[in-house]
Amino acid sequence: MRLMRVGEPGNERPVLFAADGRHFDLSRLTADIDGAFLASDGVERVREAATAGTLPELDVAGLRVGAPVARPGAVLCIGQNYAAHAAESGAEPPTTPILFYKTPHTVVGPYDDVSIPRGAVKTDWEVELAVVIGRRARYLASPKEALAHVAGYTISNDVSERAFQLEQSGGQWSKGKNCETFNPLGPWLVTADEIPDPQTLGLRSWVGGDARQDSNTADMIFGVAYLIHHLSQYLVLEPGDIVNTGTPQGVALSGRFPYLAEGDVMELEIDRLGRQRSHLVQA
Amino acid sequence: MRLMRVGEPGNERPVLFAADGRHFDLSRLTADIDGAFLASDGVERVREAATAGTLPELDVAGLRVGAPVARPGAVLCIGQNYAAHAAESGAEPPTTPILFYKTPHTVVGPYDDVSIPRGAVKTDWEVELAVVIGRRARYLASPKEALAHVAGYTISNDVSERAFQLEQSGGQWSKGKNCETFNPLGPWLVTADEIPDPQTLGLRSWVGGDARQDSNTADMIFGVAYLIHHLSQYLVLEPGDIVNTGTPQGVALSGRFPYLAEGDVMELEIDRLGRQRSHLVQA
Repeated sequence: MRLMRVGEPGNERPVLFAADGRHFDLSRLTADIDGAFLASDGVERVREAATAGTLPELDVAGLRVGAPVARPGAVLCIGQNYAAHAAESGAEPPTTPILFYKTPHTVVGPYDDVSIPRGAVKTDWEVELAVVIGRRARYLASPKEALAHVAGYTISNDVSERAFQLEQSGGQWSKGKNCETFNPLGPWLVTADEIPDPQTLGLRSWVGGDARQDSNTADMIFGVAYLIHHLSQYLVLEPGDIVNTGTPQGVALSGRFPYLAEGDVMELEIDRLGRQRSHLVQA
Repeated sequence: MRLMRVGEPGNERPVLFAADGRHFDLSRLTADIDGAFLASDGVERVREAATAGTLPELDVAGLRVGAPVARPGAVLCIGQNYAAHAAESGAEPPTTPILFYKTPHTVVGPYDDVSIPRGAVKTDWEVELAVVIGRRARYLASPKEALAHVAGYTISNDVSERAFQLEQSGGQWSKGKNCETFNPLGPWLVTADEIPDPQTLGLRSWVGGDARQDSNTADMIFGVAYLIHHLSQYLVLEPGDIVNTGTPQGVALSGRFPYLAEGDVMELEIDRLGRQRSHLVQA
């Protein structure tokens, strides 16, 4: 199933985007699509209601699309998880997952404007497979247990300001990863049953219609199951948390493309997860 | 005023701890002490109700004390913000604030147990002045504007696992900062009017009754007003966010003290902000 949220920021309504192209209002089932919904078998309740035909149809024409998960508790990010991207960043491929964070404040909808921060000159795109946690994960015994803790997948743009990230925070990346609007997410939360193998998805990005990234999640150094198991040895993953699993080669940091400018349009796509489109504006 | 939250995790009740030592229930004023409460002049409403004498007294004897802010949206941390601590960590004093993150999941109460992660051998304490944001801060014009965005102050223990932090995440510190229970916070949110100058507070820590850290916020490289202004140029600070402002010298990473072990007791104190006491247990 594809779950989404439509409406103005802070007032989104939960919606099922059915396979036949119709939209159904989930407001009677849940106030929102969030950690509490996912932790309480919300996906199953939607499935049962959809099968029973009890959901009211909704016309979403003209409505804004929000991020498909409300108020994530944490947005975990994995760095340099594609070998060719590590190389274009001037780094060796990591031997263990590199973890950093974005704050949930950075999350915006998949078609919302993205702001170039004041004083920024190196704002960059990063298409990533985002994992949405559905069940608490703590000291998992093996990677085999990991995917049972995943509610689904969506597209994340791990927008980065490279000068802030690499030159202005003593080696810690956070300062260039947490600017306002720096994590477009969505359009849909595609439930995990529809993506039995998350390491088979093509992912691509464009700026102004010109191709930038074109890779496949098969090229991840550390796959989703490995990552969830690994992270659970260090911290507790809670329902509604997002894990951005790293970006492939083809970003501006490589030197092959110009950084983003006001007026640019980023487009991001992942097989079966839809497409984002974000206009760049000046903060 | 001193605000606090008492009760079991997830069911804390908001409380005023008055200057005369009595406790008053704030449940009729607000469901909780959180970002929404702070953003809606909650502190002023408490002050008015306290002055009017309309708050019911509450017996808190035997009740658990929770963190004084519920569900922070973000926990921002400043690294190496005391010169002597930078030196004991083997680093030069930073020329610009170093930013990293903890997730809000790590926040626990000031007397809750702290877990030593499985496989950990270098778990370390860090007493820090925590700033609680009260008003949205975005591109502040100068440090002079910063303190008006602060709701108050509390004590934070930025617990760290040094091997996870420094040896197991490719240089990013997050993996050793986000283990379960790694951010004891409290006991009180002391409102900003009681701390007109946050750069005058002695802060100390002990392990097993033996002194570890003993410094003063006057020794910060970047003071609170500078930090809030500086961070607001890179990201948006929201009401209820926490800023951990860095720890002074005297942690185990220095080599002068052993790392924490199961059964140890950490105590942390900051002038006018009270005292924490945490038992170490094995995860």
